[in-house]
Amino acid sequence: MSGSVPTAAGARTGVWFLGARGSVATTAAVGALALADDLVAPTGLVTSLPGLADAGLPGVGDLVLGGHDVTATPLAKRAEQLADGGVFPRALVRAVTPGLEQVDGRLRQVVAHSGESQRGCAARIEADLHAFREDNGLDRVVVVDLLPTRPLPAPHPGLDDLDALEVALDGPDEVLPASSLYSYAAFRAGCPVVEFTPGPGPRLPALQQLAEQQGLPWAGSDGKTGETLVKAALAPMFAARALRVTSWAAMNILGGGDGAALADPGAMANKAQSKGRVLPEILGYDPEAPVVIQNVADMGDWKTAWDNIAFEGFLGTRMTMQFTWQGCDSTLAAPLVLDLARLLAAAHAAGRTGPQPALGFFFKDPVGTGDHRVSAQLDALLEWAGGLR
Amino acid sequence: MSGSVPTAAGARTGVWFLGARGSVATTAAVGALALADDLVAPTGLVTSLPGLADAGLPGVGDLVLGGHDVTATPLAKRAEQLADGGVFPRALVRAVTPGLEQVDGRLRQVVAHSGESQRGCAARIEADLHAFREDNGLDRVVVVDLLPTRPLPAPHPGLDDLDALEVALDGPDEVLPASSLYSYAAFRAGCPVVEFTPGPGPRLPALQQLAEQQGLPWAGSDGKTGETLVKAALAPMFAARALRVTSWAAMNILGGGDGAALADPGAMANKAQSKGRVLPEILGYDPEAPVVIQNVADMGDWKTAWDNIAFEGFLGTRMTMQFTWQGCDSTLAAPLVLDLARLLAAAHAAGRTGPQPALGFFFKDPVGTGDHRVSAQLDALLEWAGGLR
Amino acid sequence: MSGSVPTAAGARTGVWFLGARGSVATTAAVGALALADDLVAPTGLVTSLPGLADAGLPGVGDLVLGGHDVTATPLAKRAEQLADGGVFPRALVRAVTPGLEQVDGRLRQVVAHSGESQRGCAARIEADLHAFREDNGLDRVVVVDLLPTRPLPAPHPGLDDLDALEVALDGPDEVLPASSLYSYAAFRAGCPVVEFTPGPGPRLPALQQLAEQQGLPWAGSDGKTGETLVKAALAPMFAARALRVTSWAAMNILGGGDGAALADPGAMANKAQSKGRVLPEILGYDPEAPVVIQNVADMGDWKTAWDNIAFEGFLGTRMTMQFTWQGCDSTLAAPLVLDLARLLAAAHAAGRTGPQPALGFFFKDPVGTGDHRVSAQLDALLEWAGGLR
Amino acid sequence: MSGSVPTAAGARTGVWFLGARGSVATTAAVGALALADDLVAPTGLVTSLPGLADAGLPGVGDLVLGGHDVTATPLAKRAEQLADGGVFPRALVRAVTPGLEQVDGRLRQVVAHSGESQRGCAARIEADLHAFREDNGLDRVVVVDLLPTRPLPAPHPGLDDLDALEVALDGPDEVLPASSLYSYAAFRAGCPVVEFTPGPGPRLPALQQLAEQQGLPWAGSDGKTGETLVKAALAPMFAARALRVTSWAAMNILGGGDGAALADPGAMANKAQSKGRVLPEILGYDPEAPVVIQNVADMGDWKTAWDNIAFEGFLGTRMTMQFTWQGCDSTLAAPLVLDLARLLAAAHAAGRTGPQPALGFFFKDPVGTGDHRVSAQLDALLEWAGGLR
Repeated sequence: MSGSVPTAAGARTGVWFLGARGSVATTAAVGALALADDLVAPTGLVTSLPGLADAGLPGVGDLVLGGHDVTATPLAKRAEQLADGGVFPRALVRAVTPGLEQVDGRLRQVVAHSGESQRGCAARIEADLHAFREDNGLDRVVVVDLLPTRPLPAPHPGLDDLDALEVALDGPDEVLPASSLYSYAAFRAGCPVVEFTPGPGPRLPALQQLAEQQGLPWAGSDGKTGETLVKAALAPMFAARALRVTSWAAMNILGGGDGAALADPGAMANKAQSKGRVLPEILGYDPEAPVVIQNVADMGDWKTAWDNIAFEGFLGTRMTMQFTWQGCDSTLAAPLVLDLARLLAAAHAAGRTGPQPALGFFFKDPVGTGDHRVSAQLDALLEWAGGLR
Repeated sequence: MSGSVPTAAGARTGVWFLGARGSVATTAAVGALALADDLVAPTGLVTSLPGLADAGLPGVGDLVLGGHDVTATPLAKRAEQLADGGVFPRALVRAVTPGLEQVDGRLRQVVAHSGESQRGCAARIEADLHAFREDNGLDRVVVVDLLPTRPLPAPHPGLDDLDALEVALDGPDEVLPASSLYSYAAFRAGCPVVEFTPGPGPRLPALQQLAEQQGLPWAGSDGKTGETLVKAALAPMFAARALRVTSWAAMNILGGGDGAALADPGAMANKAQSKGRVLPEILGYDPEAPVVIQNVADMGDWKTAWDNIAFEGFLGTRMTMQFTWQGCDSTLAAPLVLDLARLLAAAHAAGRTGPQPALGFFFKDPVGTGDHRVSAQLDALLEWAGGLR
Repeated sequence: MSGSVPTAAGARTGVWFLGARGSVATTAAVGALALADDLVAPTGLVTSLPGLADAGLPGVGDLVLGGHDVTATPLAKRAEQLADGGVFPRALVRAVTPGLEQVDGRLRQVVAHSGESQRGCAARIEADLHAFREDNGLDRVVVVDLLPTRPLPAPHPGLDDLDALEVALDGPDEVLPASSLYSYAAFRAGCPVVEFTPGPGPRLPALQQLAEQQGLPWAGSDGKTGETLVKAALAPMFAARALRVTSWAAMNILGGGDGAALADPGAMANKAQSKGRVLPEILGYDPEAPVVIQNVADMGDWKTAWDNIAFEGFLGTRMTMQFTWQGCDSTLAAPLVLDLARLLAAAHAAGRTGPQPALGFFFKDPVGTGDHRVSAQLDALLEWAGGLR
Repeated sequence: MSGSVPTAAGARTGVWFLGARGSVATTAAVGALALADDLVAPTGLVTSLPGLADAGLPGVGDLVLGGHDVTATPLAKRAEQLADGGVFPRALVRAVTPGLEQVDGRLRQVVAHSGESQRGCAARIEADLHAFREDNGLDRVVVVDLLPTRPLPAPHPGLDDLDALEVALDGPDEVLPASSLYSYAAFRAGCPVVEFTPGPGPRLPALQQLAEQQGLPWAGSDGKTGETLVKAALAPMFAARALRVTSWAAMNILGGGDGAALADPGAMANKAQSKGRVLPEILGYDPEAPVVIQNVADMGDWKTAWDNIAFEGFLGTRMTMQFTWQGCDSTLAAPLVLDLARLLAAAHAAGRTGPQPALGFFFKDPVGTGDHRVSAQLDALLEWAGGLR
């Protein structure tokens, strides 16, 4: 490369997972290593499609992975557990175990320091990010939030204004929710942020100001992996045919850590709010559309969704569509995480700042756009990617 | 209006149904009359959507309905039978019975004349169309084919070349299948044609030549009403996410005349071929995708489809989506028939000729385009309609 | 008849509905009148099966209907509303309207008297039951509880002991829940009781004592109409084949009054407890089996249940069965209500007293038996009925 | 044991599989070996239930396995293929590989001898059975037919009469279908026969005469493993509630050898006839009930069935139940095969001869009984087993 600023394709890109030993991050790590060694096809990787594969993104096999987690279970052991649950074959785990051990060496454990202010905690995270970048000679680091869904924060002036936030961070209160404290630290460290959970992460006004100030792009929120993805593909069909949806009831049963986390009513309320925006935005009216999420430990890493759609056609005749979706959330989410890291890295290299609505394709609650239609979102993504170079 | 050529909105438009006493045409007639009297909302009518409602189409309540059928059962009686089957409320039938009786007065019975050549038969159809136009002071008549699905015709030189066809029509053989004989007569009578069944109707090369010669537009084929519509909405989602569909098995159970007609293997082969194009065109590869259509008389006018979609995600993990679609085919098809009559009338008024690929939105096997994606088809339709004025 | 005690078949039998203008009672009234006039077949009526049809039960068309309700909407109007919701044809309502008006004349409105003790309220109910029996020359009156599901009562010594209850009823507190206050009054008036809701109704120990003292039979509780019925039919299959159910998650969406009532968490808890007994009793172990009931007003009188059953087979291989049940609860419940009134009347005529476990076939939470298997319950019912004469 | 004739529990029992390297037999072999070594729980094994586990049957781990097949692929390799298809874990295959190799040593390859009469072929089979029994010191050998479904044979006098058959076997024609030729040889060799496919195997009158003559018990036919099992569990529920089934449409998609075999129309007709008896026998009337079996190679060893049940309730109201069954046929069938071998061995030891209707629990088309209800069949099985000692 002759230029002083490396393009994304040639630069060394790091990805820092929050929740680095969780199911999604572990699957992403296994997959990135397997793709690096050409052990698998890039199925499920959106950035492997024409129009994105050739958009000058950093190679998926070149990503340098690191991250934070509260546990210290070795990645290879986590991967074996996932393989036992049918997420990927055991043989694949064996093949990438040396690579997983290298990633293990870059992970940092999160330790609570009693009595510490949120600024102190943020500073430690920031230091970890700096160290990761420097130790590995990285041009940039994309931070990806994969922490469990949590309740929305209580209102506080510091959430809405960066100056007020800076003051509040020195105080004894926990002003920022965990996802946003990480975004604060990431932006301070010069890292773009992917908010893959309902967040709020970088969506708080105070943090949006910080991202602008730092000249950083970010994307979010809440990865659209299963039932909501199908909703966003089907609802435009009803709209296009002038069929009137009168109710759309959804039931999700899932186990794993995700199921357990969503058994918390506050977390569930945050999640449901994120999922609830799709239908009214696409249909132009707001049908009765309850979303139930039920923890069933027996489901393990798998999720089954059942949706019952009642709609009226010509002359008011009532009809019904139902679907079931039997998916593995980690399998569905992991490639999107790698996609987003590659795309946001390229956006950073191209000097984009602030929220990236064109990445709304990946999210249940896309920032900066009200368009939830899968096809329209893909068109927007392809156009945006074409303009990155 | 000051101009000599009336625009579609101001002109008097006739619709001539082939199979005018069948379920779809009867439902369309009930609906058009109910909409004329503001008894119902235009649910299911695509031309009621923004971008089409204001495109200068003839009013749905202004359409003058006529047609051919082999039976003479009064429309009001057919409508009562459909109401008993849950297709629309009985009260609606009572409200539009006077209107149905008026339509009855414009229907002509098809009578086989033994020993008659196909040219003789065509001439009688043509005469009926001329009479319908003149008796009702119509500016134009759109012919809509709603006849039961039939086997594909045996090869014959007359199917491919208009001159050869003209010679053959005088002979003793049945060269043209019924749907195409009607198209021949319609084009001769100056009428645009909607091929709403698998046809072939106007798709034969000889008839395409005739349409060009007569300066007539036409649209087809095989209305996309249920399971195939859902396929065309869902398949782009799998493509957009780089998920690999490994099989997509479909079962349709249906009763009514349609179910009985498709119990004929030849008719079924024609239908299946029409349905089979959607997936490979959208996905770019051809997964195992059997389509079974099973006649279950007990289902009456209702159809239930079940589709089982097996797909691979990241790292080859196998997942499954299933859906069931419980729809009333007449209810789903009837508004599309009115949409197509309005749109093709406007196309005719605007001087368009030949196949209209932008109307592919309505068809399983759209002529002149390989794009089966519902969203993309709607975009194309809206753009085309915007250019009609 | 020559004997002094009339047999059930020859006696005049009254049925007193609690919630007499609700969906189930209205449907039962329409059905009883339609059956009396031979307008319909006895589909759904268990007592029409061989072994019960010939068991000497009072004729379904001979039942004299009465009841309590809080509203005063005429039954014919309620029936029209149900017909609009697809519960039965409108023509049937017209045919039985005179009969419904006669029933209207026997219904009594429940009025709250402020400051009244529960004994005072019970006395008024008792008086209504006596008047119904005498005014109509009835040999016996079966009281059927169809009130909406309510939370379980707080513990109180009066619930467990009849003497303590008698004292408490004079006090100012609401000791008994509504369903049990009615059972108290019914038993005092010499009436057998069918507890068709989760109750508790007659199940409280104090009331069981009263039933014994009065020599009255009763049956309950919580009619087994839809998803639980299917559970009770399917679970024995898994047990018989030694297949291990690891989870059985159920989602019910329903509208109508029932859906609204179950939106109350206390009522829901009562309902879920009733539904929850089926699986452990049949399987012999207790798989993870959440039951979600979601109010969807759009569903009206219809309910759709979706169950996802995960099970292990030979060598631990995991398999799945799913079902959906699209039923009309009033249609499913109403014939059972008539069945139970006929059967309990015959039991009374035969001198049976106390809980009737053989009627467990009809209930989610059958009193006096732990056998929830549909087939075994039917065998028990047939044997019991054979012994009634 | 003091007696000269060993009871089943103490005797050495051999099982001779026809199709010994097929999916079902291989799974049965893996399972029997795994159970012998206590590596797995007896899930799916009906003979592990109370009332059967203590009925004096030969131990599942004590069964000596042998059989015929047309291929020579080692069992361990077949087992690995099945493990790759998710039928059981690979680790299990590794654990039982030495045992599988021992079984391999007892399998005989079927070789066609051109020009040989059917008697000659039968004699070779008979010799193999004698050798298996003697080489392994077995008290008895149960022959289990697991060959692919084939068309029904053309009528021939030899099928109906043993004397006529004996004459015909010397001639040049193929009188007996393969399944029945094996039954002939088995009976001649003194072996009880389990007909686990649609057969006809031992059901031909001529072979029934031979079984009687030889004093041998036999059981059949067509193992009830999936969709038919669910039918037999659900249909009694509709009957018990007087709900009228108006149609029951079934679609089965399956791959593997079974899917391919059933793509043959003759085989399919045989299979469908076997499946078709369940509903009319249970319901007492014959609803419209098409059964479609569709080969989808992508499904591998797994089968998904979808059933759509339309039924009428009270006052003729139409309702619907649907289910999907996602099962692994080999997993479901293999334990039943071991069950039947154990039970028929015990029946033989107890001196039972001829068809065993009490084993109808295991079959779609049970010989000697018209009772298809799962619960009633289990009761009959338990009673029969109780009488074996």
